[in-house]
Amino acid sequence: MAFLSMNLSELREHRPARTEPDDFAAFWAGTLAEARAVPARLDTVAVETGLATVTVEDVTFPGYAGQPIKGWLVRPRGAGGPLPAVVSYVGYGGGRGLAHEHLLWASAGYAHLVMDTRGQGGGWAVGDTSDEAPSAGPAHPGSMTRGVLDPAAYYYRRLYTDAVRAVDAVRTHPGIDPERVLVAGSSQGGGLALAVAGLVPDLAGVVAEVPFLQHIRRATEITDAFPYKEVADFCKVHRDKVETVFATLAYVDGLHFAARATAPALYSVALMDEVCPPETVFASYHHYRGPKEIAVYPYNGHEGGGAHHVPAMLAFAAKVL
Amino acid sequence: MAFLSMNLSELREHRPARTEPDDFAAFWAGTLAEARAVPARLDTVAVETGLATVTVEDVTFPGYAGQPIKGWLVRPRGAGGPLPAVVSYVGYGGGRGLAHEHLLWASAGYAHLVMDTRGQGGGWAVGDTSDEAPSAGPAHPGSMTRGVLDPAAYYYRRLYTDAVRAVDAVRTHPGIDPERVLVAGSSQGGGLALAVAGLVPDLAGVVAEVPFLQHIRRATEITDAFPYKEVADFCKVHRDKVETVFATLAYVDGLHFAARATAPALYSVALMDEVCPPETVFASYHHYRGPKEIAVYPYNGHEGGGAHHVPAMLAFAAKVL
Amino acid sequence: MAFLSMNLSELREHRPARTEPDDFAAFWAGTLAEARAVPARLDTVAVETGLATVTVEDVTFPGYAGQPIKGWLVRPRGAGGPLPAVVSYVGYGGGRGLAHEHLLWASAGYAHLVMDTRGQGGGWAVGDTSDEAPSAGPAHPGSMTRGVLDPAAYYYRRLYTDAVRAVDAVRTHPGIDPERVLVAGSSQGGGLALAVAGLVPDLAGVVAEVPFLQHIRRATEITDAFPYKEVADFCKVHRDKVETVFATLAYVDGLHFAARATAPALYSVALMDEVCPPETVFASYHHYRGPKEIAVYPYNGHEGGGAHHVPAMLAFAAKVL
Amino acid sequence: MAFLSMNLSELREHRPARTEPDDFAAFWAGTLAEARAVPARLDTVAVETGLATVTVEDVTFPGYAGQPIKGWLVRPRGAGGPLPAVVSYVGYGGGRGLAHEHLLWASAGYAHLVMDTRGQGGGWAVGDTSDEAPSAGPAHPGSMTRGVLDPAAYYYRRLYTDAVRAVDAVRTHPGIDPERVLVAGSSQGGGLALAVAGLVPDLAGVVAEVPFLQHIRRATEITDAFPYKEVADFCKVHRDKVETVFATLAYVDGLHFAARATAPALYSVALMDEVCPPETVFASYHHYRGPKEIAVYPYNGHEGGGAHHVPAMLAFAAKVL
Amino acid sequence: MAFLSMNLSELREHRPARTEPDDFAAFWAGTLAEARAVPARLDTVAVETGLATVTVEDVTFPGYAGQPIKGWLVRPRGAGGPLPAVVSYVGYGGGRGLAHEHLLWASAGYAHLVMDTRGQGGGWAVGDTSDEAPSAGPAHPGSMTRGVLDPAAYYYRRLYTDAVRAVDAVRTHPGIDPERVLVAGSSQGGGLALAVAGLVPDLAGVVAEVPFLQHIRRATEITDAFPYKEVADFCKVHRDKVETVFATLAYVDGLHFAARATAPALYSVALMDEVCPPETVFASYHHYRGPKEIAVYPYNGHEGGGAHHVPAMLAFAAKVL
Amino acid sequence: MAFLSMNLSELREHRPARTEPDDFAAFWAGTLAEARAVPARLDTVAVETGLATVTVEDVTFPGYAGQPIKGWLVRPRGAGGPLPAVVSYVGYGGGRGLAHEHLLWASAGYAHLVMDTRGQGGGWAVGDTSDEAPSAGPAHPGSMTRGVLDPAAYYYRRLYTDAVRAVDAVRTHPGIDPERVLVAGSSQGGGLALAVAGLVPDLAGVVAEVPFLQHIRRATEITDAFPYKEVADFCKVHRDKVETVFATLAYVDGLHFAARATAPALYSVALMDEVCPPETVFASYHHYRGPKEIAVYPYNGHEGGGAHHVPAMLAFAAKVL
Repeated sequence: MAFLSMNLSELREHRPARTEPDDFAAFWAGTLAEARAVPARLDTVAVETGLATVTVEDVTFPGYAGQPIKGWLVRPRGAGGPLPAVVSYVGYGGGRGLAHEHLLWASAGYAHLVMDTRGQGGGWAVGDTSDEAPSAGPAHPGSMTRGVLDPAAYYYRRLYTDAVRAVDAVRTHPGIDPERVLVAGSSQGGGLALAVAGLVPDLAGVVAEVPFLQHIRRATEITDAFPYKEVADFCKVHRDKVETVFATLAYVDGLHFAARATAPALYSVALMDEVCPPETVFASYHHYRGPKEIAVYPYNGHEGGGAHHVPAMLAFAAKVL
Repeated sequence: MAFLSMNLSELREHRPARTEPDDFAAFWAGTLAEARAVPARLDTVAVETGLATVTVEDVTFPGYAGQPIKGWLVRPRGAGGPLPAVVSYVGYGGGRGLAHEHLLWASAGYAHLVMDTRGQGGGWAVGDTSDEAPSAGPAHPGSMTRGVLDPAAYYYRRLYTDAVRAVDAVRTHPGIDPERVLVAGSSQGGGLALAVAGLVPDLAGVVAEVPFLQHIRRATEITDAFPYKEVADFCKVHRDKVETVFATLAYVDGLHFAARATAPALYSVALMDEVCPPETVFASYHHYRGPKEIAVYPYNGHEGGGAHHVPAMLAFAAKVL
Repeated sequence: MAFLSMNLSELREHRPARTEPDDFAAFWAGTLAEARAVPARLDTVAVETGLATVTVEDVTFPGYAGQPIKGWLVRPRGAGGPLPAVVSYVGYGGGRGLAHEHLLWASAGYAHLVMDTRGQGGGWAVGDTSDEAPSAGPAHPGSMTRGVLDPAAYYYRRLYTDAVRAVDAVRTHPGIDPERVLVAGSSQGGGLALAVAGLVPDLAGVVAEVPFLQHIRRATEITDAFPYKEVADFCKVHRDKVETVFATLAYVDGLHFAARATAPALYSVALMDEVCPPETVFASYHHYRGPKEIAVYPYNGHEGGGAHHVPAMLAFAAKVL
Repeated sequence: MAFLSMNLSELREHRPARTEPDDFAAFWAGTLAEARAVPARLDTVAVETGLATVTVEDVTFPGYAGQPIKGWLVRPRGAGGPLPAVVSYVGYGGGRGLAHEHLLWASAGYAHLVMDTRGQGGGWAVGDTSDEAPSAGPAHPGSMTRGVLDPAAYYYRRLYTDAVRAVDAVRTHPGIDPERVLVAGSSQGGGLALAVAGLVPDLAGVVAEVPFLQHIRRATEITDAFPYKEVADFCKVHRDKVETVFATLAYVDGLHFAARATAPALYSVALMDEVCPPETVFASYHHYRGPKEIAVYPYNGHEGGGAHHVPAMLAFAAKVL
Repeated sequence: MAFLSMNLSELREHRPARTEPDDFAAFWAGTLAEARAVPARLDTVAVETGLATVTVEDVTFPGYAGQPIKGWLVRPRGAGGPLPAVVSYVGYGGGRGLAHEHLLWASAGYAHLVMDTRGQGGGWAVGDTSDEAPSAGPAHPGSMTRGVLDPAAYYYRRLYTDAVRAVDAVRTHPGIDPERVLVAGSSQGGGLALAVAGLVPDLAGVVAEVPFLQHIRRATEITDAFPYKEVADFCKVHRDKVETVFATLAYVDGLHFAARATAPALYSVALMDEVCPPETVFASYHHYRGPKEIAVYPYNGHEGGGAHHVPAMLAFAAKVL
Repeated sequence: MAFLSMNLSELREHRPARTEPDDFAAFWAGTLAEARAVPARLDTVAVETGLATVTVEDVTFPGYAGQPIKGWLVRPRGAGGPLPAVVSYVGYGGGRGLAHEHLLWASAGYAHLVMDTRGQGGGWAVGDTSDEAPSAGPAHPGSMTRGVLDPAAYYYRRLYTDAVRAVDAVRTHPGIDPERVLVAGSSQGGGLALAVAGLVPDLAGVVAEVPFLQHIRRATEITDAFPYKEVADFCKVHRDKVETVFATLAYVDGLHFAARATAPALYSVALMDEVCPPETVFASYHHYRGPKEIAVYPYNGHEGGGAHHVPAMLAFAAKVL
């Protein structure tokens, strides 16, 4: 994929108008209040992995509607505490994976909570959390259109809430310092991190690699790649419901969360990314309200900075945590 | 796609062994008994379509767990009655479509009930019926692996039950002769028709075009095409759950329904069909217990006989109804 | 296919210059006069289809050079008359199909003539009409370049003439009201309908879904999709004949017919249509001289409005017929 | 494309049964007699190419039904004579190309007649010969199905006759030795060379590189590649005409010509050739009646021996001419 | 990719004949003796990675012809010693990657040497080691055909020697127990591990995931996937050098190393692996001389067991180290 | 591939700024001086090809660092002399091919030297010249990134030098007129011809068909096609070396050679060429300093003018030689 429609100097200036629903703040305040009726907690069960330098625990915490959400808690073995923590979210189609798959953050000395993704986990990494909700009308295969005809029934309302509650949960853990929590993720995981950053006021930092779910309607107009294309495919069939779909999506568009977020943020963007087009990432970045920096990878697609970006993330975490 | 592994003369002899779960009969008897606790009925609302020769009604009937299932009832305008009826099921990914899309059977003089497909309807034809059930664990995008780790929670348990209840419902309609009901469908629709034929003893006939869901495990080994590939993709990620998956699928494999069905059946098969490989269709055909005939389309893929098969279907219906 | 080069607001203003050949009007006047030397007639033979609500007749009428052109005449069974009529044309590569494939218009109460497409009919729907003309020089596979080096020998000169003569023929039928004839079609069929609208002055209406053959040279520059690509492929080989090719195509470009047409028209366009790019459809629409409306399908490709567009077409027909 | 179904040792033994139409010999005897009612001649016009070592002439000769067929006659400049001659035929979709494109055979000291291919020439090399015949019913794009429902109207009846008449024509030229004529070609050109070898008794030699049109029905069952796939695609639409199609094709299948040919032959075959599968080439080779040899290229597709095969062809020609 | 030509029960019995070059043993004895003229050593430079639980060193050791080969040495921070060690090799096209990318083995308590791959490292993971040798004749892009016309000049002679010398080098390290060295790798890395197992007599264990470079000639006949296809593509062009190519490849075919190896081995194989077809992996496995086990992943491609296989590898390592 | 970003009238004006390295002239002066320390010579060995009108000799001459470079010298048989000469270069991935593959220029009366391409020749035409240089660090498969991190070690420094020395060598031949030498090539061959034109002051003419290696950085931003994509793929992995890569490539960018060249030039360009985008060819053309003309092929891809361009090339050669 050669460079997309805008070149880098145009992207550096790209700050499109955003229009959020009138009741956006109320919608999320209500959603979270309802979810927080169930007190935060983090249940842990030790897991034997054969690893020597880290411990892994199988964790469960209450998410949307108090539903049990799974995760892994990985920590450096024998570390005292309380430790600063990283809460990370997974890319589209994947779940929390297996217990030994999350070595980086704990090897760097942090407590690391990996949140499972409800109802995903069949695509590439395994998952263990069901989406305990009816499908609420027709859906194109995949999560993007599940319940998309109604903001209250939409899949991402539940998932964003889970992500907020993961932070609530990790802060209850005695070995973790609740003042020093960073949220992180790539693609959908980056979109979740940004949503949490807009909904939880006192985070220490945000790492959003090539984030998904930013400037969604525009994305459906400029890329043919999944998962944005799930929305386009739904609209292709449901020709009479296009406006309804985008009315719902406005409640989960990352631009509106970015505009509220105040924690320091490290974005990354890849100029040949067809999955999360750079135009949409820069749109989010330029609306981000807090201190921010962005790493640009000119010849990369959705793999973004890959392993080359890890030192930047570790340095950012070291700075803010 | 050139001719697949077996040639036609081998296919004509292909009757692989089948192994059904010990409690297969009990599983389905229990499932249907539970569903039939809600009495059959067919609620109808007239629809204005601008069509002159047929009437269309928007219908609802109780399906699995009494959940409301939608459909269309199309009938020749001004026909007396009671009429013989065709109950038809839709291919994978589609729903009941729009009110004016089902002209054939009614134009031929039959009452025609098109059943909507729960939780599908985003792929090509619109649908209006939700799948009111939790996702029950991880699932690959698509319906094929929804709840696949447990026969009781599996999607097709619910859908097959809906299909049986569609026959129950249509038989309650005063304008329809309950003794003269034919079930029909193509691909997933054909698989549903065969399942119903194995579960409802007194049908007048069965039309199964290039049926899906026959000899499922074998299919996942010989084709790369969706939707069978959804199962393979799930097993690709969930490497430790392969046997669990196929233990569930054994409860919905068409071979076991075919072996119980007694109504006259018209199958079709296409020798270059990668979606529903001919080997799997012949496996079903040769296990079918009732009177049967099969139309073979040598140079076709999953489109099968297409419009050329319609006269054969009309003639078959005229004979058995 | 994401949104193409122009966005909707640009398309709404897009009315490119058009340059028709000096003798365009004379060319077509001469062509039609020559064809009409053979008097119009519509020979019909009843067909047994097993359908109850409609009758189908196998018809033949004189087309270009008086050559026999096939079609189907479908009418509501038992309807009195004379009825208003729809003459429809088929998309590229297809023929008239089988007798029972055309239920919509007759089910809505109209007499419906489906014209077969000379020399096509191998691609998806069967056909029964030969193109009784020499190939007149080299041609890329497909009809688009048949005789393209000479306007007089070009395939579409013959096919457009057939399409005009289909209207002439249907008007001779005693069961049809010659004052109430609507022409319709999708893709190539839409292009034919627009050509007829520019050549036959007293039609009741025109339905052109995602019409092909509009602003042809531009189309070959902006899409890689067939059948426009047949022209590009021909020019790729015949590098020295590019201008000759487009000199011929200027005689069949829909823009020049649109600029002459006066009957009320219903266009449709799909914004992700690579086969008939929206830019070319809007070019035609904005040159259309008569009363007009256009349905825009933003997330669709060449399937356009599909079944969702049917109610709009029925309503339009009800209004103008 | 990895090695196809049969391995080389199986191919070395592969001599499938062949069934020719009862009137095969009569069909071709009649066809040729009719064509030969027009006396053979070779009209030549000198062409200026800027080449110094060879002369090129633009030639015309009477083909099927006496229709004018174009070609190039290329000869070493200043060579005395009469020279031995090579008559070559072109691959599918191409025409005779341009005057300077045929340097090999003349550079090797032979007179070389390149026959144009009627009605092709749009695909890759330009052509100048029309196929002066009606399309005789529906046809899939491409020449393979033109008139395929009737042996008398089938395209290859005309083209094979042209190929025979090219030999007749070249033999009338005073600068050419009529006793020393070799026919040659690759793919369709090889198929034409073999057909001529079966119809003209006194050739000096035959070069058939990866020949097309051998064991045609089998080919349509084992390959998805064009142009054999044109036949399969036609049968896919015209489901009711499969046997009619193959009844026609039996009149042009190379196996029956090979079984009659007596001139020394050099075949080539490529084991990864999907266009002309090795199984079909060996079938022809093993039925070939005259002295024969075959060059096998194990890791090649339809490009066959390419430039590596040229020395073998030159050596073969040097031996037989 | 559905199941390949052999099914699992056939694969379980598949032990094809192997023919090694007469001087195979002498070739490798000479090659290693020459390389070992340079004494083994492991130069290390500490690297700052920001990781807390492990240390990483940038290492260099003498490989083929004493050329400097790079690698990473990763060890659990603060572990006493001497530790058992894992020497791992990288898949085709990749290099050693970045310092922080190799956390697994060290996190499990082992010293881990990752060997860089000479002249690769451009494909997916970065590398830092040149292939200091002339290209020795034509080569298809990629390493597979570099110098393939001569065993002495062939790329894999050098790379296999590097892999042996990596074991020599790691054994000189004071913190590592030379009696407890396991070699491991996936794909090309697995092929290297098997080659080393055949050349170094006293290893503690071998882990070969979906190994490449096994039964090479057969692989080129049954798969179209790279990198085996590089060989086929080379043969496609160099039609006259096919036997020369395979004469060279016989010196690096894993079957001959497997037949000499005596250390306990853990293989893995994926039944839908097109890159390293299961037939070739089982061929190697059945020739393996030492104690062995194989993990079979039925629905996987070249990703093999992925993260699911890690516990098996850790358990195997715990047993043999 | 439909028309690319700029239309023809924009391309006609497209003359982007170019920035050459400060030491560009010195770099090449030094490189050539070093190479010319080995005196030019052309060793020839007669080859038996079976051709009558031309002679072919297998030639060797000293290239970069005096390394032996192969080629073919093809001349009209029996021509007196000294003859004007054409030195031609080969496209990417190919070598000099076989002795009989180069008939055109000699058939037109010129001496023709075909230079082999070091280290290529595995892709489509065979080659016989090694690239006697270490790979100098990581490289993506293919020649484009071989040594790309250092101008002194970069592959094209060697190849351009070979190309200059081919002209030096041919001028030593007694049968060739050293004042009348034209350089020619297509794609990479065209890029080499332009480089030579910028480095050798007294050429008679330059033919550059769809030249590669012009405006390289821009090319990597606008096309996804190989071989430019090799650079992008390298940068995709080596994210930290992007600027280093382009610093090297600036020494071989054709724009800087074009700006120095004074011989009459014939360019060609194809408007749908994705391999060598028209924008990059026009950039070179507009910087070309000498007399120039350009042939534009609007509907062609990288095949450019193909055989249609030959008469133009012959006429150009006749004029300048």
